[in-house]
Amino acid sequence: MTHTEEHLKSSAFITDIVIGMSDGLTVPFALAAGLSGAVTDNTIIITAGIAEIVAGCIAMGLGGYLAGRTELEHYESELNREYAEVETVPEKELQEVKEVFAEYGIDDAGQTLLANQLAKDKKKWVDFMMKFELGLEEPHPDRARNSALTIGGAYFVGGLLPLTAYIFTDTPIHGLITSACITTLCLFVFGYFKSKITGQHPVTGALKVTSIGLIAAAAAYLVATGFDRMFS
Amino acid sequence: MTHTEEHLKSSAFITDIVIGMSDGLTVPFALAAGLSGAVTDNTIIITAGIAEIVAGCIAMGLGGYLAGRTELEHYESELNREYAEVETVPEKELQEVKEVFAEYGIDDAGQTLLANQLAKDKKKWVDFMMKFELGLEEPHPDRARNSALTIGGAYFVGGLLPLTAYIFTDTPIHGLITSACITTLCLFVFGYFKSKITGQHPVTGALKVTSIGLIAAAAAYLVATGFDRMFS
Repeated sequence: MTHTEEHLKSSAFITDIVIGMSDGLTVPFALAAGLSGAVTDNTIIITAGIAEIVAGCIAMGLGGYLAGRTELEHYESELNREYAEVETVPEKELQEVKEVFAEYGIDDAGQTLLANQLAKDKKKWVDFMMKFELGLEEPHPDRARNSALTIGGAYFVGGLLPLTAYIFTDTPIHGLITSACITTLCLFVFGYFKSKITGQHPVTGALKVTSIGLIAAAAAYLVATGFDRMFS
Repeated sequence: MTHTEEHLKSSAFITDIVIGMSDGLTVPFALAAGLSGAVTDNTIIITAGIAEIVAGCIAMGLGGYLAGRTELEHYESELNREYAEVETVPEKELQEVKEVFAEYGIDDAGQTLLANQLAKDKKKWVDFMMKFELGLEEPHPDRARNSALTIGGAYFVGGLLPLTAYIFTDTPIHGLITSACITTLCLFVFGYFKSKITGQHPVTGALKVTSIGLIAAAAAYLVATGFDRMFS
């Protein structure tokens, strides 16, 4: 049991890093690329990039925190409802247990036997209903907070990497070229390890992740330069 | 059955709209707010905002598409593995079925009875293992594509609303004030319906969603103006 929970916990952590880092490496890079075709000063690009990173961090982190809290509250309210139903309408709940098994071709005698054995322990009965009828797993109580910090932090780190290029170059176009090189490398390495962890082919996965970043940057560049030419 | 699937499908659609719209209403608004304190020309803000929306749309939409494809591939590979195991090592799989039930206090006789009945129909047996041993539900085959379009579209619409303010005003500060009014209203209305759908208290939920947007915008504004003062 302890081992399984450790495993789940580390998966959630890695999932959060992947969520934050995917967007962090892609969106600020693409925004900076877009602006590179439309402005003449690196300072504006860095300012916009930093504003985006701060906004994205808070939106994703705080959004993740609230989503996690909601999930926990939802689980707890359903849990209380199941406990109440087991107390007040036990025969209805027993019928629901039977229906879960009926779906898998268990016959009447088998269903009754199971329902009666489950009903002996209310905690296990309710746990069974939560998982098998409602498909809900108990969220870790610290999940919301940890998730917010991990996603926000990964977005921050991922977003700063492409921006550094604009600090060490003098013109947007040099910044863009350097930034594209740094980010392509980062996206590939990130995509490689992400795919390894999620059990996909690492090189194919790395190419997919890198493509999303480059497509987003190319589209942002085309739209921003097009818009700039129309209105400036 | 048909009814349940309809319900699940519409939930997934609404979840995707909520995902896209939450970030769409928040991040481009906050980016524009941040730039309002650092630049003197609305055109730069609109260009940056549009570049961000395009980048965010593609990152979220294409990212969602690939995540959906991966989920489907993962489900299919696990499904094939379970079918193979049921053929080649049925006694091991029967033992795993028993363990699932043992956790809920079902006795040896009950476990054996259930395992034997499940084993009569290989499809149901595998479905049972997928859902209750591995916790995997079959994803809808069009889910990845639909999810990408819905999330990307919701992000696009959500992101354009705050930007319109900068088109119809002359200076960044007027744009910011108008944009903050429009976005606060949109976030509140969006948060209200989102909370109603997810079963939270609508006004509390609306206030939470609105707060995230305003906190992100205020933070982006402070960081961008601070950075601008340091380096300009």
